Amino acid sequence: MTDWETRAREHANDVNARIPEKWVIQGKIPTADEQRDVTGYIRQFLTAREIRITETEAIDIVANIASGTWKAKEVTEAFCHRAALAHQLVHCLHEIFFAAAISDAEKLDDYFERTGQTVGPLHGLPVSLKDQFHVRGVETTMGYVGWLGTFEGREGTGKEKVFESEMARELRNLGAVFYIKTSVPQTLVSGETFNNFIGYTNNPKNRHLSAGGSSGGEGALIALKGSPVGFGTDIAGSIRMPASANGIYGLKPSAYRLPYEGVATSLDGQNTIQSSIGPLAPCVGAMRLLLKNVLASKPWLYDPQVVELPYRDELEQCTRDLAKRRLVFGILDHDGVVTPHPPVARAMGLIRSAIEDLGHGVLEWKPPAHSRAVGILVNSLLYDGGQDVHKNFRLSGERIFPQITGLYGETPSDKQQNATDIAANNVLKREYQKEYLDYWNGTAEITGTGRPVDAWILPAAPFTAARPGRYDWYGYTAVTNVLDYTTAVVPVTTANKDIDLKNETYTALNDWDRKVWESYDAEIYDGAPVAVQIVGRRFEEEKILVLAEVLDEALGRANS
Amino acid sequence: MTDWETRAREHANDVNARIPEKWVIQGKIPTADEQRDVTGYIRQFLTAREIRITETEAIDIVANIASGTWKAKEVTEAFCHRAALAHQLVHCLHEIFFAAAISDAEKLDDYFERTGQTVGPLHGLPVSLKDQFHVRGVETTMGYVGWLGTFEGREGTGKEKVFESEMARELRNLGAVFYIKTSVPQTLVSGETFNNFIGYTNNPKNRHLSAGGSSGGEGALIALKGSPVGFGTDIAGSIRMPASANGIYGLKPSAYRLPYEGVATSLDGQNTIQSSIGPLAPCVGAMRLLLKNVLASKPWLYDPQVVELPYRDELEQCTRDLAKRRLVFGILDHDGVVTPHPPVARAMGLIRSAIEDLGHGVLEWKPPAHSRAVGILVNSLLYDGGQDVHKNFRLSGERIFPQITGLYGETPSDKQQNATDIAANNVLKREYQKEYLDYWNGTAEITGTGRPVDAWILPAAPFTAARPGRYDWYGYTAVTNVLDYTTAVVPVTTANKDIDLKNETYTALNDWDRKVWESYDAEIYDGAPVAVQIVGRRFEEEKILVLAEVLDEALGRANS
Repeated sequence: MTDWETRAREHANDVNARIPEKWVIQGKIPTADEQRDVTGYIRQFLTAREIRITETEAIDIVANIASGTWKAKEVTEAFCHRAALAHQLVHCLHEIFFAAAISDAEKLDDYFERTGQTVGPLHGLPVSLKDQFHVRGVETTMGYVGWLGTFEGREGTGKEKVFESEMARELRNLGAVFYIKTSVPQTLVSGETFNNFIGYTNNPKNRHLSAGGSSGGEGALIALKGSPVGFGTDIAGSIRMPASANGIYGLKPSAYRLPYEGVATSLDGQNTIQSSIGPLAPCVGAMRLLLKNVLASKPWLYDPQVVELPYRDELEQCTRDLAKRRLVFGILDHDGVVTPHPPVARAMGLIRSAIEDLGHGVLEWKPPAHSRAVGILVNSLLYDGGQDVHKNFRLSGERIFPQITGLYGETPSDKQQNATDIAANNVLKREYQKEYLDYWNGTAEITGTGRPVDAWILPAAPFTAARPGRYDWYGYTAVTNVLDYTTAVVPVTTANKDIDLKNETYTALNDWDRKVWESYDAEIYDGAPVAVQIVGRRFEEEKILVLAEVLDEALGRANS
Repeated sequence: MTDWETRAREHANDVNARIPEKWVIQGKIPTADEQRDVTGYIRQFLTAREIRITETEAIDIVANIASGTWKAKEVTEAFCHRAALAHQLVHCLHEIFFAAAISDAEKLDDYFERTGQTVGPLHGLPVSLKDQFHVRGVETTMGYVGWLGTFEGREGTGKEKVFESEMARELRNLGAVFYIKTSVPQTLVSGETFNNFIGYTNNPKNRHLSAGGSSGGEGALIALKGSPVGFGTDIAGSIRMPASANGIYGLKPSAYRLPYEGVATSLDGQNTIQSSIGPLAPCVGAMRLLLKNVLASKPWLYDPQVVELPYRDELEQCTRDLAKRRLVFGILDHDGVVTPHPPVARAMGLIRSAIEDLGHGVLEWKPPAHSRAVGILVNSLLYDGGQDVHKNFRLSGERIFPQITGLYGETPSDKQQNATDIAANNVLKREYQKEYLDYWNGTAEITGTGRPVDAWILPAAPFTAARPGRYDWYGYTAVTNVLDYTTAVVPVTTANKDIDLKNETYTALNDWDRKVWESYDAEIYDGAPVAVQIVGRRFEEEKILVLAEVLDEALGRANS
């Protein structure tokens, strides 16, 4: 075994050894063919009480703890157990620190017992974090073997296993309990999740498929109810791809709404397109709970990039009032480049009808070509010719997965972009944003409400969850990173092999379209979740969460 | 004469020819030696009525027009006259379009007469704009001869003399009247104002000195009361240097508070340090009037980069309430690199005593070294090795002033920075911002108010107005561009040769310090305005305008 293989294996073994023996699944874990969907399967290993706790929404968890009905420790243990099972089924964790979590929960219980008060509005709530966040006591590898024992690849900084990201600090202050960190693809730059520690994170609803990426561990863990809410990051869809692939909700806020300070990342300092932090959860209410309380921590006082925008109750209320009257949604079924797979096309039809059935309006969304946005974003990710990611690979000499070499090669390119190139791309981005804004404003002429469309809806991806190695088109998510628009993922349905039939005589529009079309197989995709995205203007997080609930209502689910 | 000289001369002649014959100053204009300060001198050419109108604050001008007491036309004509005189005295205008302005004013008067209403809260208010803003009917040269007849150097765009910047559109909608555009240095990248059209913009308070730059025409014009309020831009001090040099007020908001959309600039797409737009005026009230009303236009709906932050009356009121109790200001007398000239050091002492006399507190401001910020900013301006500015010079082959070749050479450098270099500088900036924020937060321990310092104060520059060719240190302004902090300039006093004596035995700290020290001459600087800057956190414009009034009060001037 090579040195990097040994190091990766040893760390993975060390992490897995932190699963208590009693929580280790005995016997062989069924294959994907034997047990495609493990979201129900996982329950057999849990007590009824553990199932009840882990299937309770975040808002009710904190309410039960704050009322003294539940103890933080019991809640934490239940999620630790379920997360340990989830990891054994789909490989979704990078770090496990149950002992620290249970100790933290005990301290919260002691405080509550002593004072009759909670430490904050998230008192006792387990929160999962993608392995970009620094949490004391454990590694942050971001999927790089060479980062083991270092701080983001640098040795001797004194920050190793001690420093915590600003978001972690704020969540702890609010009463959250950390217990695991979730898996990401090496480099983060992928819609799948794989690395030399955990191998591959499978989709728990359909283990033939990917859990998405780069917040793939979050998506899989939350779908398995191993976490009631967690945080990912998103520069081209990395919150939304795992949310949609796993049938849960996700919110990509505008950049700098929530604090990125002290979070590890790739291509740090590339500032044409900004990655943003946002929640993933099984329901909208959990995302609001976290958004609202993190903003109440005034992150702009601690992260110089965060804009001073408190949670605006009035924007939430105003949207609720409008929703009682008539809303008009733009609908984009096709981005002009890649035709969505049959289950996705069907989901778009379902959401359109559901909106109309509620009495709201829809109109065709015909904005400036989304392909331009994709070009701007891909260009931004390639500015340095792969220097940053290869620098991190070289630390260990580890194997680079083909999904990464496809973008960054086996070695970095000698040709970096220069200041003139980068400035030109920044101008293209601004011009695209301006044209898009003007287009949106212009819809006021045709909505009949006197307002431009309230939000617009598009597929979360051209596929449901992707097949391993075949996440071939990011355009459906990437466009709103370029625009910096608030975007939420709302689950709609699941793929059904009996009705979502492949069009065998389809003529592809281009090479991307051909690849995506070829990847469709009704049998393989059967049962995979399908979601849509709902998009608001920049910094409209309060509004978009309400509109996600409107879509939920339209689809017949109860508002959370 | 070379081609570029001919073109520059012809355009300047064409502009000057738009000054009505009756407004042309007869006879020889006195030299700076004969008449150093022309701010009073200018009055002899005006009627008593014109003096009264042009020396009225913007708030009262709009009130007088809105009440029907004054006509927009009469107000516009008075400012046109005074601006024409100002230009003849100090060369502060690039474009003159009095006929269009008077016609616009007549239309406003007609509307008012017909409806009894104003078109908006700035109905009939003349507003000056730096020659980066596009206004229909006239050129935007930004000091480049090669931009004549083009749109930002590009031919055949169809936008020439038709397109208007977003800010111009909003101001017009609010009722403002445009009548001139003010001078800037070629490239904008200078603390002085010079180009091949107008030569050099002199300081009207002391014509031996510079009017500052790059919004030098604004500073000079407003000091001569040829405009009641105007807009400049600021990436290293370009609003604040002319404000302080000319004894007026200026506000550099945080970037993207006010709309930059459709405004010409240099190094477009450099996005490490963002230039921001802000007002210059003879009083704080005029700046608030403009800020508040532009924000009421919801610029975030039309400029994708503007953050959705309406004018926050509650932040203004909260600051007023705090000011009635005890405020604590940080005081930075010296930036650790360049020692301020004697009049500037004296002004810092005056403001410190005045604050203490009001019962507020002061403490020494000891932040992360400002020299780091200067390095980050200069680096940003040099990313492209001068490619952008030289591309624009090459359009005409015009003479490049030594202030520009000092930074960008006679020809562009072949060495551009690459993506890795630029990303590294972006990271340095973020780290600096974070350290600064933490330092500021930490002062809560020592203020005694329970809050960190409310704002901090530093010199506007190490000199009063600079001597031509000797604007040698930008550190005092540049630091808050890197930090993106809200910063206002407040005039304090004027240089006095009898008390502001040169320390002839001074030992310079470094080369910059030596140059600046050598440039001091009590006789030459006599009578030049001296100002300080007051600095708030990011997006605290409402608060900083109130605190500027607190300083005014401390200095014994009435609040406007």
